Amino acid sequence: MKLLEKTLQQIEPQSATSRAAARQRLEQLTMPHWALGRVLDLAEDLAGMTGSMHPLVGRKTLVIMAADHGVAASGVSQFPQEVTVQMVHNFVNGGAGANALARLAGARVVVVDVGVAGDLGDLVSAGKIVSKRIAPGTANMVSGPAMTREHAVATIEAGIETAHELSDSTDVFAAGEMGIGNTTPSSAIVAALTGKEVEEMTGRGTGIDDARLQNKIAVIKESLRVNQPDPNDALDVLSKVGGFEIGALAGLILGAAALRKPVLVDGFITTAAALIAQGLCPAAAEYMIAAHASVEPGHVAACRKLGKHPLLHLNLRLGEGTGACLAMNVVEAAVRVLTEVATFGEASVSTGG
Amino acid sequence: MKLLEKTLQQIEPQSATSRAAARQRLEQLTMPHWALGRVLDLAEDLAGMTGSMHPLVGRKTLVIMAADHGVAASGVSQFPQEVTVQMVHNFVNGGAGANALARLAGARVVVVDVGVAGDLGDLVSAGKIVSKRIAPGTANMVSGPAMTREHAVATIEAGIETAHELSDSTDVFAAGEMGIGNTTPSSAIVAALTGKEVEEMTGRGTGIDDARLQNKIAVIKESLRVNQPDPNDALDVLSKVGGFEIGALAGLILGAAALRKPVLVDGFITTAAALIAQGLCPAAAEYMIAAHASVEPGHVAACRKLGKHPLLHLNLRLGEGTGACLAMNVVEAAVRVLTEVATFGEASVSTGG
Repeated sequence: MKLLEKTLQQIEPQSATSRAAARQRLEQLTMPHWALGRVLDLAEDLAGMTGSMHPLVGRKTLVIMAADHGVAASGVSQFPQEVTVQMVHNFVNGGAGANALARLAGARVVVVDVGVAGDLGDLVSAGKIVSKRIAPGTANMVSGPAMTREHAVATIEAGIETAHELSDSTDVFAAGEMGIGNTTPSSAIVAALTGKEVEEMTGRGTGIDDARLQNKIAVIKESLRVNQPDPNDALDVLSKVGGFEIGALAGLILGAAALRKPVLVDGFITTAAALIAQGLCPAAAEYMIAAHASVEPGHVAACRKLGKHPLLHLNLRLGEGTGACLAMNVVEAAVRVLTEVATFGEASVSTGG
Repeated sequence: MKLLEKTLQQIEPQSATSRAAARQRLEQLTMPHWALGRVLDLAEDLAGMTGSMHPLVGRKTLVIMAADHGVAASGVSQFPQEVTVQMVHNFVNGGAGANALARLAGARVVVVDVGVAGDLGDLVSAGKIVSKRIAPGTANMVSGPAMTREHAVATIEAGIETAHELSDSTDVFAAGEMGIGNTTPSSAIVAALTGKEVEEMTGRGTGIDDARLQNKIAVIKESLRVNQPDPNDALDVLSKVGGFEIGALAGLILGAAALRKPVLVDGFITTAAALIAQGLCPAAAEYMIAAHASVEPGHVAACRKLGKHPLLHLNLRLGEGTGACLAMNVVEAAVRVLTEVATFGEASVSTGG
């Protein structure tokens, strides 16, 4: 608990001075006022996060937190649980969507096992993945808490540790995940923390049919009824209806915020984790960038609670950090505009009006 | 006219074979079905355009067509006409938004003067810009045709020539523009070709106030009344209420389509040009990629007529090709996913359902 408490105390709001300085320059660029819209908003934000007029964003790391879910036994996913292990191998071999898009973004991929229900010892021994295992998958939340409160703290701290371990080589973090069944706890978390109806927060995940969707909704409702998570206690929500990778992502986000480094929040699952982080420390949201608008219906309410507008709208629903990797280009664009575009004065261009 | 006629004859539909082959592979990738949404749509499209399962997209060229507009004298813009010349210098010096985002995308920037009302001879002599001047700005369309039909053909052919001249060093074209006042002819073109009300197709351009917006709408209405452009004759529309850079962009797009190379259509002005290209040859639209959703209100109707859904939604309204440069990352992402992501079989991952 000490690392978590210390981290929460370290998180400070963005630099108002750097935001103001950035805004002043951006308003003088050789273009109609604020004509690059969201790109300029992001430039101002990045200046505020990093406290710099030249935010560093060159060194990018995609962290993929992987874990399994007891609730998968309740038939909530299209895919069998063994796919979590198989996809970890796919990441290590460079064959997944996240790998392709991380390569494009120039991002390093780091896979962390925080609770996969399978043996990944060979990959850990070979240094191909990082092990911060809490347990081999959560318990099934439909009949009790997914994890103990101690495990909830431990998995968040695993994420904070990861941020610190990568800090020296990372300017921008991207948060991604793998875990068969993990849209189910994510919908439960978002419903618990926003107070919205489970039906409205629950989608088809990897592509389930109508019957399985109805089952998924019933499982989430029962999990919330059985566990009664306290929406004013994010640790309680995480432990009762969360997941190890979700907690670890919340920790990664908190760690990034404490380090004053931007963190790209990927899709629905990572946004549920971001809500946990926000619940533990509202100022952490000032370091989050919502990468894209997920197809999952609960994502809108989750983003609204975070106070975020996603950058990209590309009908993505893959996770892994794929949307975060795509959004890295917009992050770099924002910095390029802030640092490379001439002002009216510098370029001797007449101003309007 | 010979080059234009020949080009229109050369444009063929996308390769159905390559589209089908791409779709088959994309449906087998290690991810839930079509889970990267628009990125996969684009991958299928790029395969169809290039007739290849490994579409080349590495060599990118942003072409900025620059020209002036007689209608600027009617007080339709926030900025004085001299800004067109000043911004051409800014492009040459690398200080504009388009330069910063082209550098990020790894795109070469080529500026073509097709009718700027000012002396750019020094930049032409120094090889810094290309000159294909038709005339020093169009006539004011509010009192008669913006240009002769001969000039309309000449400026389209200037764009086709540009595509051919750059073809050996370009895999993907991006179409951008500079020309103070050019949202005014663009709104007129879109209104003429879609049959929509001028009020709904007209926006604030560089940021005009309510009074100037009302004047702009009145000017466009009067231009359409005086000139009576024939919506079934794209050349007639271009000559009566168009602009030299708009015609040249239409030509660039037609040239790219004839060469079977993708062309990123930037914002509102370039989309008006794309409508002219579509009017001359409907199949040309199969090589266009709508880069982003412009803030200009007429852009929605223009995209609908093209049958395109913009990739990015970032509240951009700068033009120059800035949105096209940002969208290049999505183009590259689509190719990466098509060529680098493993299938279920290749990666030994269990399939769902």
